[in-house]
Amino acid sequence: MKAPGKLTHFDEAGAAQMVDVSEKPVTARTATAVAQINMQPETLALIREGRAKKGDVLAVARLAGIMAAKKTHDLIPLCHPLALSKVTLELTPAEAPPRIEISATVKTSGQTGVEMEALTAATVAALTVYDMVKAVDRGMEITGARLVFKDGGASGRFEAP
Amino acid sequence: MKAPGKLTHFDEAGAAQMVDVSEKPVTARTATAVAQINMQPETLALIREGRAKKGDVLAVARLAGIMAAKKTHDLIPLCHPLALSKVTLELTPAEAPPRIEISATVKTSGQTGVEMEALTAATVAALTVYDMVKAVDRGMEITGARLVFKDGGASGRFEAP
Amino acid sequence: MKAPGKLTHFDEAGAAQMVDVSEKPVTARTATAVAQINMQPETLALIREGRAKKGDVLAVARLAGIMAAKKTHDLIPLCHPLALSKVTLELTPAEAPPRIEISATVKTSGQTGVEMEALTAATVAALTVYDMVKAVDRGMEITGARLVFKDGGASGRFEAP
Amino acid sequence: MKAPGKLTHFDEAGAAQMVDVSEKPVTARTATAVAQINMQPETLALIREGRAKKGDVLAVARLAGIMAAKKTHDLIPLCHPLALSKVTLELTPAEAPPRIEISATVKTSGQTGVEMEALTAATVAALTVYDMVKAVDRGMEITGARLVFKDGGASGRFEAP
Amino acid sequence: MKAPGKLTHFDEAGAAQMVDVSEKPVTARTATAVAQINMQPETLALIREGRAKKGDVLAVARLAGIMAAKKTHDLIPLCHPLALSKVTLELTPAEAPPRIEISATVKTSGQTGVEMEALTAATVAALTVYDMVKAVDRGMEITGARLVFKDGGASGRFEAP
Amino acid sequence: MKAPGKLTHFDEAGAAQMVDVSEKPVTARTATAVAQINMQPETLALIREGRAKKGDVLAVARLAGIMAAKKTHDLIPLCHPLALSKVTLELTPAEAPPRIEISATVKTSGQTGVEMEALTAATVAALTVYDMVKAVDRGMEITGARLVFKDGGASGRFEAP
Repeated sequence: MKAPGKLTHFDEAGAAQMVDVSEKPVTARTATAVAQINMQPETLALIREGRAKKGDVLAVARLAGIMAAKKTHDLIPLCHPLALSKVTLELTPAEAPPRIEISATVKTSGQTGVEMEALTAATVAALTVYDMVKAVDRGMEITGARLVFKDGGASGRFEAP
Repeated sequence: MKAPGKLTHFDEAGAAQMVDVSEKPVTARTATAVAQINMQPETLALIREGRAKKGDVLAVARLAGIMAAKKTHDLIPLCHPLALSKVTLELTPAEAPPRIEISATVKTSGQTGVEMEALTAATVAALTVYDMVKAVDRGMEITGARLVFKDGGASGRFEAP
Repeated sequence: MKAPGKLTHFDEAGAAQMVDVSEKPVTARTATAVAQINMQPETLALIREGRAKKGDVLAVARLAGIMAAKKTHDLIPLCHPLALSKVTLELTPAEAPPRIEISATVKTSGQTGVEMEALTAATVAALTVYDMVKAVDRGMEITGARLVFKDGGASGRFEAP
Repeated sequence: MKAPGKLTHFDEAGAAQMVDVSEKPVTARTATAVAQINMQPETLALIREGRAKKGDVLAVARLAGIMAAKKTHDLIPLCHPLALSKVTLELTPAEAPPRIEISATVKTSGQTGVEMEALTAATVAALTVYDMVKAVDRGMEITGARLVFKDGGASGRFEAP
Repeated sequence: MKAPGKLTHFDEAGAAQMVDVSEKPVTARTATAVAQINMQPETLALIREGRAKKGDVLAVARLAGIMAAKKTHDLIPLCHPLALSKVTLELTPAEAPPRIEISATVKTSGQTGVEMEALTAATVAALTVYDMVKAVDRGMEITGARLVFKDGGASGRFEAP
Repeated sequence: MKAPGKLTHFDEAGAAQMVDVSEKPVTARTATAVAQINMQPETLALIREGRAKKGDVLAVARLAGIMAAKKTHDLIPLCHPLALSKVTLELTPAEAPPRIEISATVKTSGQTGVEMEALTAATVAALTVYDMVKAVDRGMEITGARLVFKDGGASGRFEAP
């Protein structure tokens, strides 16, 4: 971790700002974020069963995540709009605890990174899973949403420990 | 928890659908969701300090959460659009672990509940905190996003244990 | 067909307006629209095959249609915003000519009808099919997009001949 | 037509994805799409008359098409966001059958083509014509929506036969 | 003018909130706002001439204002989303100083007023006039944007002096 | 001021169009716009007091302006979408008359200027101030919204007199 310093999203007077990236070079940037949603075993079974037969919860959530990545600058006030060149999501059922694991990877060629786009995609996919199965399980919990990888730009490569 | 049964967001053939709520009565509905974002102690100190002086991270995140609640039906594919009558968020710094705790409450008078609006508000507020301080701490984690209360509608009252 | 008369979307001076529906009663309204997209037999085979195995073009298009219904008032300049209570789409592969047939049904309880929502849903679903398979067939054609049924409101029931 | 092959919008496992265009060169790209909306002769007369005097249906539809082109990536789930450099539409009344013919041309300098933007512009313009005159003619039909020209990018030039 | 008192958009602790209107009755509400854009006499002549012949700046601006009214809750952070039942705009060329006068009227049946919708419609129409003719006159000024009338709701009727 | 000439937003036939900027070079562009909102002295006092203690009207308005800049192409029909590289706003209380002065600066690297983005940011910030304090002062007036500076692009530098 870098030593905490100045929050770049505020100017000298403490006013929020969309920081000036106009002098930054346009470089290839990529970021991967993960999240998971924990649920009852019966809920996970229902999702697995639906996937095999009909009613694919994970396919809907994946699409929601992809579309949300494109809306990131509209959701996060100080994010720069970016022309994304790739968005992919993986949603994987897992046990102990029963859960869906979500991983989102975003790429762009631009002046700022795509960490927020990856985190937004993973999180909205998790929210969509919640929406699809909330009729049978209101106690689900979205957890572990974090950045696991980024590359490109002045701050360089980051890999979560 | 209700016994897992049919996923209402799919029809008999397994096709995703926005379910018919036209026969449901219009009732007062409310929901509260929480989330938290864990961080380094130095990062939390920076947020606290900025709040006292200038550069209020939590005020920006609160506003982002309110605005996101209004976009929920645009983010979650099968959510019904709703005319929200109230959205409030609380963001509270806390220790052990160092974190921001977020609580979002949404109200409407409508034919479906506002669980997704409350969850979306809490989650986007957490994402915005991440964005505002990511320059000093990329390892933050959004966790514990879940519904803690809902009332109104046929499924009645829910309180998280 | 009603005898052509005054175009209600313009005032006396010819200026476009979003017409005043405030005196209209709130009633249950429903509308169904259809569209189809014609394609090469190989393209249709590819969609059918993907559906059986993996890569479900029709599921993505269905979701796009549902989400587009919610955006109708943002796309069609003089449409009133409405709180939709149901949106469903059916996408069915058919032969002679090789095509996907699309049917969209929308319901609301409001002061104006949902014809445009149904037509927008059907059309955007067709556009999404185009997008998903355009790499193998640029000559596809969207055709036959029309209203087949509506009910509710002062103008009453309409069934396409 | 190219021989049908792999659908690039799905990965190996059949999951929908926004494909990686980050390695593609930035080139000038253009696309033209057409659509038409057929109507009763009296309806066409009404549009022509309004245009001469007041209440220009075609001007509203043209503007709706231009604005829709800019929303394409928000409507079509797997479309890349693009900074469009030109959008123009032509709407022309024609006879036998009575109809409005629509042509939309879009340009960009980017890593993917603008076929979907041109098709979306033409189709939303047609939907807007429908909305403007539906009070007098519910039986109108949008038909013949297809790509007629594209240039730029690896797949090269396409002209509809 | 009412005596200044508490700002309802903040809670006791000073946190911004979307205020609770759930206890307010649903009543008919209307609001009218005005704005004007001052310009060089040659610019006004150009707009008048274009209107008579071709290139109707005011028709484009009127449509932009109508569409903006529908986006108000997306632009103004603490505004409630509302199902508007009417939006009309008048744009009138005037002299001394050379200007376009804009008036916007919005109606709804809801729990909050439509002042912000009317003000947003008038202002965005003025911005659109600026955009359409800025190539010939960068010195135009938007001025006098204010509420002139509102009715409905607990705070009752307001007429600007 | 340039001598009034052709309105580039219309083609030869008078049809509105999003003009072709594809041949223009990508250059650094910046624009600054101002606006002000006049109010009762008690209203200004309330804003100042809230700022010192709690309930910061100006912070909410600043954020609304930043987010609106990113939506400009969605509000102004013939504006090109642009990847903004910087957006900042200053909101300053002033007397005689009692008012908030707003200044917005936007930067991009692109093929068209950011005048509309700066004007939209300043205007929406003013509208947000109105919304936040309208409960105590409905007679506020937004005035003096104009471009004060632009640089970059073929038309070169502009400074308001």
